[in-house]
Amino acid sequence: MKAYKDMSREELLTLKADLEEEFKKAEAMGLSLNMARGKPGASQLALSMPMLDVINSGADMHTLLGNDTRNYGDWDGIGECRRLLADMIGVPKDNVIVCGNSSLNIMYDTVIRSMVKGVNGSTPWCQLDHVKFLCPVPGYDRHFKITELFGIDMINIPLYEDGPDMDMVEQYVNNDDAVKGIWCVPKYSNPTGISYSDEVVRRFANLKPKAADFRIFWDNAYCIHHIYDEIQDEILNILEECEKSGNPDMVYIFASTSKVSFPGAGVSAIATSQNNMEYIKKFMDAQIIGHDKINQLRHARFFKNIDGLKAHMQKHAEILRPKFEAVLHTLDVELTGTGIGSWIKPRGGYFISFNAMPGCAKAIVAKCKSLGVVLTGAGATYPYGTDPEDSNIRIAPTFPTSEEMEDATKIFVLCVKLVSVEKLLQE
Amino acid sequence: MKAYKDMSREELLTLKADLEEEFKKAEAMGLSLNMARGKPGASQLALSMPMLDVINSGADMHTLLGNDTRNYGDWDGIGECRRLLADMIGVPKDNVIVCGNSSLNIMYDTVIRSMVKGVNGSTPWCQLDHVKFLCPVPGYDRHFKITELFGIDMINIPLYEDGPDMDMVEQYVNNDDAVKGIWCVPKYSNPTGISYSDEVVRRFANLKPKAADFRIFWDNAYCIHHIYDEIQDEILNILEECEKSGNPDMVYIFASTSKVSFPGAGVSAIATSQNNMEYIKKFMDAQIIGHDKINQLRHARFFKNIDGLKAHMQKHAEILRPKFEAVLHTLDVELTGTGIGSWIKPRGGYFISFNAMPGCAKAIVAKCKSLGVVLTGAGATYPYGTDPEDSNIRIAPTFPTSEEMEDATKIFVLCVKLVSVEKLLQE
Repeated sequence: MKAYKDMSREELLTLKADLEEEFKKAEAMGLSLNMARGKPGASQLALSMPMLDVINSGADMHTLLGNDTRNYGDWDGIGECRRLLADMIGVPKDNVIVCGNSSLNIMYDTVIRSMVKGVNGSTPWCQLDHVKFLCPVPGYDRHFKITELFGIDMINIPLYEDGPDMDMVEQYVNNDDAVKGIWCVPKYSNPTGISYSDEVVRRFANLKPKAADFRIFWDNAYCIHHIYDEIQDEILNILEECEKSGNPDMVYIFASTSKVSFPGAGVSAIATSQNNMEYIKKFMDAQIIGHDKINQLRHARFFKNIDGLKAHMQKHAEILRPKFEAVLHTLDVELTGTGIGSWIKPRGGYFISFNAMPGCAKAIVAKCKSLGVVLTGAGATYPYGTDPEDSNIRIAPTFPTSEEMEDATKIFVLCVKLVSVEKLLQE
Repeated sequence: MKAYKDMSREELLTLKADLEEEFKKAEAMGLSLNMARGKPGASQLALSMPMLDVINSGADMHTLLGNDTRNYGDWDGIGECRRLLADMIGVPKDNVIVCGNSSLNIMYDTVIRSMVKGVNGSTPWCQLDHVKFLCPVPGYDRHFKITELFGIDMINIPLYEDGPDMDMVEQYVNNDDAVKGIWCVPKYSNPTGISYSDEVVRRFANLKPKAADFRIFWDNAYCIHHIYDEIQDEILNILEECEKSGNPDMVYIFASTSKVSFPGAGVSAIATSQNNMEYIKKFMDAQIIGHDKINQLRHARFFKNIDGLKAHMQKHAEILRPKFEAVLHTLDVELTGTGIGSWIKPRGGYFISFNAMPGCAKAIVAKCKSLGVVLTGAGATYPYGTDPEDSNIRIAPTFPTSEEMEDATKIFVLCVKLVSVEKLLQE
C-alpha cells in the first residue's frame, strides 16, 4: 500500500471520496459496539462460575491454620490466599498482604496515606509545596486519576518497547526530591502491551532516589495474563532486585484476580518489604478489622495453587486470542504501509495501543462514535487526559465477541483513514 | 447486701480473706475464657450459612436492572442491595451507597478524605492548626483509633442514658470552628447499650455548627440488633430531622451487615444527603471501579427485604439473649446493693458496660486475666485509651457460650469485689 504522505493531492481527494462513500454505508448500518473498557467478556466470566460452588453451606469454613473465615481476624489475609497471590506475583508469602476486591483501592489508600502521614515517617506529602509522580505514557488512566485528585504534578515519561525512558527516570528520581513516585505496569503494559526488559528492571532497582520516600508503584496487573502459550513475557522480580541493590523498601507491588476470577469480586494484594508492611499495618489497623476472608477462601480452594491459576489463565487466553487477532489482522491488512498508524502486537494483557498521525486521535474517536463504535476517549492514556501529540488510542478487544471486534475494527480503520486524509489535505 | 463503703475496716478484712480464698480456688481451675471482643458466636455464624448456597454456578448473576454483577459497574452498589440497606437504615434508597465489607473502612475513608481534601470543598483539615472531634464516652475504641491516627484532638463528652450531654455538644459545636465531627453510636450504643432519645436526636439535627464542615458520624451499627421481641428501641431518623432543620448535609450514617450475616464478609453502606454523595462520588471514582457486587447480590437474594432481615435478627436475638442474661443475672445477684459497680441492662447491641469504683478498672481487668478471663483492656472505651476515672469495663458476651459467660462473669464479679475491697482498705 502506498504511504498516504507520498500521495498527490489528487490521489488524496479520490481516496477521500471513496472513504466518504464507505462512511455513508457504515452510517446506514446503525452499529452499536464498544471497545472502550478493559472488561472481560461473557465467556470469560463463565470460566469462573464453578468457583461459586466451592464455598457452600456444607463447606468447612476454616483456614488451614484453623481460623474461622466467617469471623473477625487475619487482617493481612488468610494463609492459603496469601500463598496463592504470593506465587502469582512471584514473591515470598510473608511479603504479601491480601486485601479486598480492588488493587486500585490499595493504590489509592497508599497515595492518600502518604499525603496525610508520609511514607514510613517522612514528611506528609500534603505539607510539601510540590509532589511529583513520573508517568510513563501512554499509561493507565485510573493511575493518573488518583495522582490528579491529590494535586500531585504528573510528568510524562516516554514508554518504549522495553520500558520507560530510564535515562529520564534516573534524571528525575536521582536529582529531584519532589519526585515521590512512578506509576508502572511492568508486564503487558496498559495500554501498549510491552513488558519491561531485565535491564530496565535492574535500572529501576538501582535508582538512587533523592527523596527517601520515593516509591515505585509497580502495578503488576497482568502478571499471568498471557495470550499465547508459546511466547510468554517474563519480567525480573523487582522486589528481589531492589533487595540486592540495597533499596529493599523502594517498591510497592500491586496485583489482583480481577481479570482472573471476577472484576469486582476478586481478591487483591500488595507485596512489599517488611519495613513497608509494618508501616502499612499501622493504618490498616485503624482502617479495617479484616477483608473478606470467605472470598479469599473461595479463591484459595478453587485455584488450589499457582498451577491452578495458570491453567485457568490458559482458558482465558483461548478466548482472548481470536479477539486480539481479529483486531491485529484488520490493522495489518488495512494499514500496513500507509504510514498513518502504528501499533505493537501484544503477547498478553488487555489492550492494543494505536498511534495515529499526530493531531488525529480525537477526530478518529469522534468519527467512530458517530458510527456507533465507542472507543476510550482520546487522551485518556495520558495524565490530565491530554495527549500532547493527540495520537494515542487505546483499543480494548476483550468485551465484544470476535465478530463484533472485526466489525468494530473495520469501522476504526475506516475512520483512521478518513481522518488522516483530511489531515493531510489540510497541510 | 451491705454497701462496701459502709463496712468497717474489720468487716472489709474478713471479706477480703474470704475473697482471697475464692480467688485461690479460681486460680486452680485454670480457666481460659474471653469476653473481650464483640464477635458473633459459632451458632450465630451458622444462621447465615444458607446464604452461601444462594449464589452458585447455576445462578442468574444479573441484577433486577439487568446488570451483570460479575463485571465492572454500579459503583454505588446494585439496586436491590441499596434498597435492602436503605430499608435497614430507614432512609430513601437514593441516599445510600453500598460499599465493601466494612463500615469502619468507610468511616476511615471519610476522615482521611476530609484531612486531604476537606468536606465538600472546605479547607483540608490537614491544613488547619487544630481539628477536634467530640467523643461521647464510653464509646467505640475503633472510632477513637481513626481520629487518633490523624492527630485529631478528641474531647470526651459524657454519655447518659438518653444520649450524649447535649448542652456540652451544643456548646462545642456551635462555638468552636475547630470542632469538625462527633462519633455517635445512636442505638444500642457501644458499649453502654443506650439509645438516643427523640429529644437528643432533635437537638443533634438542630445544631448550628460554627464550622460549615462539621459532620455527625452516625454509626448506626446496631440498627436492627435487638435482643428482645417485646421491648425494642427505636430512634428518630437523623437524616430526616437534619433536612427538616435546614441542616441536610450535616450527617453521615454508617451501617453494615457485619453482625447480621458475617463479620468481614458482609456489606456496608453510607447514607447521606445528595450533596455529600456527589462529593464522595468524586473520590470513589478514583478509589475503586466498584465494590463486590456478587456479595451484594448474595445478600439481596438471601434476605429478600427488610422483613427477611428482621426475621433473621430474631434468630440472632434468641442466641444472644441467654448470654446477656447470664451476665446480667450474675451481676444482679452478686453486686446489687454493694455500691461497687453499676451497669445498664441493654435491649440490644453487643455489649454490657460496667462501671467499677473509680480507680479500679485496670486492676479488675488484670486480676481477671490472671485467672484466665480476658476482658477488653480498661480504658479502651475512651479516647487515647485513657479512662480518666479508671472505672469503665466493656463486657462482650456474644462469643462464648452461655455457660462460659456464666463462669466468666463469676470470675469477673469475684475480681470486682476483691479489687474494691483492696481499694477501700487503702483509703
